[in-house]
Amino acid sequence: MPDTIMVMSEEKNGVSLETLVSLAKRRGFVFPASEIYGGISGFYDYGPYGVQMARNLKSAWWDAFVRSVPNIYGLDSAIIQSTKLWEASGHVGGFNDPMVECNECHSRHRVDHLVGKEMDNLVDYVPLLNDVECTVCGKKGKFGEVKTFNMMFKTYVGATDDNESVSYLRPETAGGIFADFGQVLETTRAKLPFGIAQIGKAFRNEISPREFLFRVREFEQMELEYFVSPESAEKEFDQWKQISWDWLKEVGIDESNLQWHQHTQTERAHYAADSWDINYEYPFGSKELWGIANRTDFDLKAHSKGSGGDITYFDTEKNEHIVPYVIEPSIGVSRLMLAALHSAYTEEEVNGETRVVLKLKPGIAPVDVAILPLSKKPELSKIAHEIYVTLVGETDLTVEYDETQSIGKRYRRQDEIGTPKCITVDFDTLEDKAVTIRDRDTMEQKRVKINELIAGLE
Amino acid sequence: MPDTIMVMSEEKNGVSLETLVSLAKRRGFVFPASEIYGGISGFYDYGPYGVQMARNLKSAWWDAFVRSVPNIYGLDSAIIQSTKLWEASGHVGGFNDPMVECNECHSRHRVDHLVGKEMDNLVDYVPLLNDVECTVCGKKGKFGEVKTFNMMFKTYVGATDDNESVSYLRPETAGGIFADFGQVLETTRAKLPFGIAQIGKAFRNEISPREFLFRVREFEQMELEYFVSPESAEKEFDQWKQISWDWLKEVGIDESNLQWHQHTQTERAHYAADSWDINYEYPFGSKELWGIANRTDFDLKAHSKGSGGDITYFDTEKNEHIVPYVIEPSIGVSRLMLAALHSAYTEEEVNGETRVVLKLKPGIAPVDVAILPLSKKPELSKIAHEIYVTLVGETDLTVEYDETQSIGKRYRRQDEIGTPKCITVDFDTLEDKAVTIRDRDTMEQKRVKINELIAGLE
Repeated sequence: MPDTIMVMSEEKNGVSLETLVSLAKRRGFVFPASEIYGGISGFYDYGPYGVQMARNLKSAWWDAFVRSVPNIYGLDSAIIQSTKLWEASGHVGGFNDPMVECNECHSRHRVDHLVGKEMDNLVDYVPLLNDVECTVCGKKGKFGEVKTFNMMFKTYVGATDDNESVSYLRPETAGGIFADFGQVLETTRAKLPFGIAQIGKAFRNEISPREFLFRVREFEQMELEYFVSPESAEKEFDQWKQISWDWLKEVGIDESNLQWHQHTQTERAHYAADSWDINYEYPFGSKELWGIANRTDFDLKAHSKGSGGDITYFDTEKNEHIVPYVIEPSIGVSRLMLAALHSAYTEEEVNGETRVVLKLKPGIAPVDVAILPLSKKPELSKIAHEIYVTLVGETDLTVEYDETQSIGKRYRRQDEIGTPKCITVDFDTLEDKAVTIRDRDTMEQKRVKINELIAGLE
Repeated sequence: MPDTIMVMSEEKNGVSLETLVSLAKRRGFVFPASEIYGGISGFYDYGPYGVQMARNLKSAWWDAFVRSVPNIYGLDSAIIQSTKLWEASGHVGGFNDPMVECNECHSRHRVDHLVGKEMDNLVDYVPLLNDVECTVCGKKGKFGEVKTFNMMFKTYVGATDDNESVSYLRPETAGGIFADFGQVLETTRAKLPFGIAQIGKAFRNEISPREFLFRVREFEQMELEYFVSPESAEKEFDQWKQISWDWLKEVGIDESNLQWHQHTQTERAHYAADSWDINYEYPFGSKELWGIANRTDFDLKAHSKGSGGDITYFDTEKNEHIVPYVIEPSIGVSRLMLAALHSAYTEEEVNGETRVVLKLKPGIAPVDVAILPLSKKPELSKIAHEIYVTLVGETDLTVEYDETQSIGKRYRRQDEIGTPKCITVDFDTLEDKAVTIRDRDTMEQKRVKINELIAGLE
């Protein structure tokens, strides 16, 4: 990991990964999973603020791509599916990474990560490895045979551990969408173009998980499979590229850190007609945040063949059955969360002191409003609690009630959580029936009557 | 499965499981997972309406138990955790079901299900099996040895399949909550009593999954661990029993189908001081919907011991470190959904024809409003689309746009989905700038001006 760099707001692209990891842990966004048991590499738990921020990002996606679009339908398919599904999709045979073991310390590595590029054939990695140091023990060129490693987690369904009961945790949510294409079509009576959207966990047994939330073994995906007529696929693809880019801005991703990356023929899957990533400039480099692929009719045809069925769409204009093309915009929640935290992280000098503030978009920030009575005196608590009950009852806001520590420390805490508005209940409140609303970004405070508070928060 | 019984509304407790399965599939609530591949027992996919209904139930739970309560914090821990966690919790050693194999057809069975009761010792099942028929081949008393079977799904994390890399899919979400107790406490600075809440997938390798959504291998839990001082545990336990019961009514569960079941000493875990289930009268009997347990300090102590840590809470009043007790209300989303569908399912005679209608609570129903232009004529589509855009833009409602089939068939379809309000755009709309709102339950129609529509939906 790079060194921690203390930066002011105008240099926020220089925020180190270590700074974000530290904030995420300190403020209850993300903890390493099973930390009290020594951890488990590639798995993370979302703490009280992380789970709320992830919920907000997922809700925003569902709202934009399912709720607000008449021809996109939701789905929640199971994580464990028939093994035949993953055989048909090509994952049992081909969802592999190239792996090599260090002969000295027996650590295992992704070869393409070690040598810094992807090769078409495993043997092409061998000469490149001669000059490479093991990232664990530091020995140079002491590597064994380059092998393929299937990234799907294997398990056994039923009461025996034999080949017939082998199953897998899905490596992507898309498989369930393609397998249910016919059922969704039948129950919704959808017409092309239409989409099926899914948010759910996926699992990849990464050889070397790294870069915090970026390369993890358990993650959540937001996937959309948008089915279109083959003739309109290119046009639809261009539209989805634009829609995806625009949505990232909506949820507060810093556009100056985004860039397009078109897959070369080597990078993209053999069946994809075109594939672009929206890359984000993470502290560890410009890496894929959102992949948008024109997967042609590959998936539906593969599942037709695999299931012995006939997965088609009846085109009433052409009066014939066709196999739609599919445009797939697919984004990971944890990669998005990391980009959002990075975009929002700001250090400012205030009265000679450094203020850390997460300038998260309102609606994405885990807490919308914090209610901070100036002291724990019962007369203040009473009013503060009444305000809490009113706000959670009459709005959809997520409200935090916090009466511990000095008001200055509590403001700093809420700044680091990214809370857009803090409400302070003080002793004047007893007289003027008003409270102070403090704005996270400007730190400006305004006095608002309690009975005008909800309007005053806007 | 029992025969399909055609019943009228006043007899709705007689709704058969087959009727619900059929409706769920026909209307896009629930499909068997991997159905095109012959299925996989114990796994289900939630279709467009099922996923939305499940989202509504989960949101209602989160809203009631996290968003609206100042001292309950959310968490989203990983499904795969360190194996040490499940060793400490007792699941590796003791999360077993008694299993037996039929010597004739080699099918495997839960012995307690076969004989219809639970015994303390495996050997006690043997004499009872002599009179029992295999539920697959029908042969009587032809069973092998009674064994224990661990219900956790096993997998391997990392690049080797050896004992060191063995891990498990969590059998309940609670484990992650207990392991993160210290981190949540530190980052929220919570005071007793406080809760940690989690919604997430859990997995149990059931020997014989059955009863549709009731006994499945992959499911979603909504778990709350409410930490309290040992002295107040009994009182808090009673409160959570009441809160849980009341919430079920809130989301539309038919109270007349609910009953309390206190665990006998044999039924409940050895560490639990008290344990009650809210049972629901499903078509297959009165079975657990919501379990509420006083788990004492068992879990936190077990994880202190397992991790070599010291998981305690500093009680400022007593000025000492204590181990809190925990009250656990835990409910499964799919069991709740099945109870909600069963409670809502109604058949009514209307003009001599049978009308099937899901009288789901508004807010729980998958679609809030359906917009149904009377014909596909462009002048109606234009207005209907404008209404759609207005409704999704200015409200949080889930709105469906449907212009296919006769209006009668579309009403019947929306009745079976449970849509509380249908909006019909007809040719009069062009003149009077008004639409018809049809109420699902009364089937009454009222004419409302388009510019007063949002208020008219309430």
